[in-house]
Amino acid sequence: MTNSTDELNAMRHSLAHIMAASIVRLWPKAKLGIGPVVENGFYYDIDLDDVKISEADFKGIEIEMRKIIDENQSFERLEKPIDGAISWAKESGQPYKEELLNDLKRAGTTVAKDLNADELGTITAGKSAVDKVSFYQNGEFCDLCRGPHVESTGKVGAFKLMRVAGAYWRGKETNPQMQRLYGVAFETEKDLRIYLERLEEAKKRDHRKLGQELDLFVFSDMVGSGLPLFTPRGTVLREELSNYSNELRQRYGFEKVWVPHITKKELYEASGHWAKFGEELFLIKSQETSDELVMKPMNCPHHTRLYASRPRSYRDLPVRYLETTTVYRDEKTGELGGLSRVRSITQDDSHVFCRQDQIEQEIHNLLQAASDLYATVDMALRVRLSYRDESDAYLGSKVLWESAQTQLKNAVTANEIEFFEQEGEAAFYGPKIDFMATDAIGREHQVATVQLDFVQPERFGLEYIAQDSVANTPVMIHCALLGSVERFMSVYIEHTAGRFPVWLAPEQVRLITVNQEDKTVQFAETILKQAKELGLRIEVDNSNESVGKKIRAAEMMKVPYIVVIGEKEIESGQVTPRIRKDLSEQENSKSLPVSEFLPAVSSEAKNRTNKTTF
Amino acid sequence: MTNSTDELNAMRHSLAHIMAASIVRLWPKAKLGIGPVVENGFYYDIDLDDVKISEADFKGIEIEMRKIIDENQSFERLEKPIDGAISWAKESGQPYKEELLNDLKRAGTTVAKDLNADELGTITAGKSAVDKVSFYQNGEFCDLCRGPHVESTGKVGAFKLMRVAGAYWRGKETNPQMQRLYGVAFETEKDLRIYLERLEEAKKRDHRKLGQELDLFVFSDMVGSGLPLFTPRGTVLREELSNYSNELRQRYGFEKVWVPHITKKELYEASGHWAKFGEELFLIKSQETSDELVMKPMNCPHHTRLYASRPRSYRDLPVRYLETTTVYRDEKTGELGGLSRVRSITQDDSHVFCRQDQIEQEIHNLLQAASDLYATVDMALRVRLSYRDESDAYLGSKVLWESAQTQLKNAVTANEIEFFEQEGEAAFYGPKIDFMATDAIGREHQVATVQLDFVQPERFGLEYIAQDSVANTPVMIHCALLGSVERFMSVYIEHTAGRFPVWLAPEQVRLITVNQEDKTVQFAETILKQAKELGLRIEVDNSNESVGKKIRAAEMMKVPYIVVIGEKEIESGQVTPRIRKDLSEQENSKSLPVSEFLPAVSSEAKNRTNKTTF
Repeated sequence: MTNSTDELNAMRHSLAHIMAASIVRLWPKAKLGIGPVVENGFYYDIDLDDVKISEADFKGIEIEMRKIIDENQSFERLEKPIDGAISWAKESGQPYKEELLNDLKRAGTTVAKDLNADELGTITAGKSAVDKVSFYQNGEFCDLCRGPHVESTGKVGAFKLMRVAGAYWRGKETNPQMQRLYGVAFETEKDLRIYLERLEEAKKRDHRKLGQELDLFVFSDMVGSGLPLFTPRGTVLREELSNYSNELRQRYGFEKVWVPHITKKELYEASGHWAKFGEELFLIKSQETSDELVMKPMNCPHHTRLYASRPRSYRDLPVRYLETTTVYRDEKTGELGGLSRVRSITQDDSHVFCRQDQIEQEIHNLLQAASDLYATVDMALRVRLSYRDESDAYLGSKVLWESAQTQLKNAVTANEIEFFEQEGEAAFYGPKIDFMATDAIGREHQVATVQLDFVQPERFGLEYIAQDSVANTPVMIHCALLGSVERFMSVYIEHTAGRFPVWLAPEQVRLITVNQEDKTVQFAETILKQAKELGLRIEVDNSNESVGKKIRAAEMMKVPYIVVIGEKEIESGQVTPRIRKDLSEQENSKSLPVSEFLPAVSSEAKNRTNKTTF
Repeated sequence: MTNSTDELNAMRHSLAHIMAASIVRLWPKAKLGIGPVVENGFYYDIDLDDVKISEADFKGIEIEMRKIIDENQSFERLEKPIDGAISWAKESGQPYKEELLNDLKRAGTTVAKDLNADELGTITAGKSAVDKVSFYQNGEFCDLCRGPHVESTGKVGAFKLMRVAGAYWRGKETNPQMQRLYGVAFETEKDLRIYLERLEEAKKRDHRKLGQELDLFVFSDMVGSGLPLFTPRGTVLREELSNYSNELRQRYGFEKVWVPHITKKELYEASGHWAKFGEELFLIKSQETSDELVMKPMNCPHHTRLYASRPRSYRDLPVRYLETTTVYRDEKTGELGGLSRVRSITQDDSHVFCRQDQIEQEIHNLLQAASDLYATVDMALRVRLSYRDESDAYLGSKVLWESAQTQLKNAVTANEIEFFEQEGEAAFYGPKIDFMATDAIGREHQVATVQLDFVQPERFGLEYIAQDSVANTPVMIHCALLGSVERFMSVYIEHTAGRFPVWLAPEQVRLITVNQEDKTVQFAETILKQAKELGLRIEVDNSNESVGKKIRAAEMMKVPYIVVIGEKEIESGQVTPRIRKDLSEQENSKSLPVSEFLPAVSSEAKNRTNKTTF
């Protein structure tokens, strides 16, 4: 972590104390739990008996907090013997602190694993019992705390209380329920304002809301949670995205394969996944046979069976398989939400089987494909290179690891992609590249990965005959460019706020008739037919509504081009498309003949441009 | 059945008697089981103690059979009281016949359900015990038999013994194992010869054998039986076929959707499938949740959820969904073989939700699509119209049924497709059209279906608002054009003997270099690049083998065009493609410039022609 992160964390944690102090001022009988730093802010768990804090109380709490901040109280660190601390907790009427201190006395920090142990004021590290604990005092408020804090309450930056939620003490349902009060905090008012604006924007862009409004996907109670069903419009997005992802790799010799969604569990016993991930698999019960089957949670073991289905020579390598297919993972339903986390995960998966000396070129190709993809979807990309460390937690020879890590870095450097390196972040079976894409409101999402694998080829006994006629083990490279199609869609819908570029728009053009007269309808039908011959996705709104209402309906669906068909258009054979705002500087294009307009839209779709050419 | 079928069956059954008589002549201690007619012939189950009949014995048996045939013995029908018959069996040393007769005496024909009861000489029908039984006598041979037979042994047509296999008496593993001797028989020597030739041809075309030779699909013990994995070449076939099938329907407004492969079982409880087919489903055990899930054995219930996800008006109908997706059915592994019967069944499925008055037009479109498809794959098509009968086994109003049946027939007639009608063959939920396609060696396969459904829309409470603002129930039309992609592939691989037309060929062109000189390799690479830009599937064989060997290797893979690259080609820029025999009258085309050859192949692929244009 950088110093500025440390500083911001100290501010946020100091605000947790200030909030707790304010609450004790307002409700002197408040019993305090713990108050750690979280992403973008902090919280504190509080027991107020039957007093329920609501958003209406936030203003009062914030006023009290500002008083403490204005008082600029200094944060003083104290140390107390553990028994003295327990007496203090008892006397102060703080039973939760007392419980924590007793636990610390008994067994040291390990017992407090369910808490954010860092937050506790333990001084003796490790598993042994604790002798002394630290406290921080500001004004009249004193709290068991490891620190660090800012110097004084005046130096906590900008903050805002956000929400209150129920939380069981120490996360156990049998414990009392407390109230968890969340705040966000940043160094400056400006940073806070930017964050709050983004939050507001993120709400508007929520892909679950847009998914419904734009008729992209639905869930059904009868089908089950985490199992989205895609409408025709959503299916266009799915297919265009995954076709493009495939096309980018087919350029480099990847070939599509197909494997079933189920397998005998032997396959995962052989791969080693059964021992590691057996509990996350959906088990299948065959009523007709004694087969023990599972749903595939990944495709690599199946793909090794294709590689192994015939002898391979060094000249045949690399063998490159590509498959967009759905894997199933038995997620807890509580963790599922929209498309961000689903149980039916469609991966744009691929596997390369290559020689060690081919790694760099293959990585290079995949990086090029990823760069092209993320440039097209207009998201900035940076990558993390995850290497091994010096521990012995890694399989495969160290020489191979070092060569592979160098090849990864060479490929990333040659592709001029922003990157950073992290030792000790590799999987046990090989180093990897994780791609992070930044969306339109500044959030970074992990998307594609390229993962080397020295272990599965060995476990499955994969071979190729080298030039010297000796059998050798190939290296595997796992790669998905979108990652999970569903998760990518959740990111991309929010990135674009549903304003998809022409190549992805489920409906690219909408024709709106000004009346239901025969000649109007016929003219619209003629355009429709021509557009469909060009492969365009086009609809006609010939309903008996006002033109204004029909335009608004098309705008609601974020259709890139709206074309009104009336007397003038029929006479001139020219149309004046209304262009969706984000695609162009001007709202209306000039008039142009239908015979120019349609091919131009078709060519935008083919070239996958993000802006209109009109 | 027609009279000629009856006649042929009598011939075949008479041959079973003649074969049994011959065996008794050769092995007088032979104990006989039963000898029914089967497809194309007959068999007899025989117990010869420790004598093992092998193919080497067939000649001797056939000679004996011909003697009996030459003797032209007449078949005489006799009747015996059941007790007399039992004594006869005992005295003749025929314990299996004795057992059958005792069973017949005890409980009538029902007890003999495990046998082909028609074959037994029972006279009293129904469930009551049997008084008298019939026998047929020819020469010295007499057998318990219902008949009918031909007049005399001279009138049995042409036959051939084919194979011998083990078979447990009455199919039970705890019973003695007998030898089942199979023969085929036809009215004329010519029919027999045609049959045997086709059989020979079918063996050569066996899709399991070709699937291996042409590297199309593989099975893996670790994955499981009935779960094929498709190689890059096989995946080309899968995708080209299903894309074409989809394209044919997209012309008529079908739109792709996507649903997961699993669902809570509630969905099938609602559809009614759970009660009917619950035992054929793969059940899924979630280890993380209490959800009771199953793998989908069909897509219609999922698709109803998409239809129901928003309000529909009469103007929105028909709603047409299209999805090529894999369903899973828990077949007994003993029933699985190659791609003909699999557990992962990919359907080119579609569902129309329409008004009653729209049925005919929708059926018309689907028939047109099916006709186009089967014309392109060069298979003759005829259809069976399956109607309801007068029983009350059908759901939905009779008026609706009659209107629908008329609409089906109108559509079939308008499409000028050969058809026949069968009452009582409809599903309980609606009438249907089954498509039968004839392959190159005269076998007829059931492929596509179009099925009306009056029941699921009702069960799922599907609605549309009619013009009079009243909620109405739509009709559903289920349709798959290929049926199961895997089963269609098994048929089509055998239909073409693996000689796929250019549009389906996994490899359309192979370039063969005469040497490894730079300029040769470069010229090949240039052609390769141009071909790939045209979307062609092309490979280069630049290996260090003789040109003859390389040509034979390409021929083995049934590549449509083989192009040898040597001095002459490099100098002239012209190629002389070797054309696969079935595609053209002449073996070699004339020479033509690369710039003409490649676009011509590309255009053949696009037009899906079965013959070359050269």
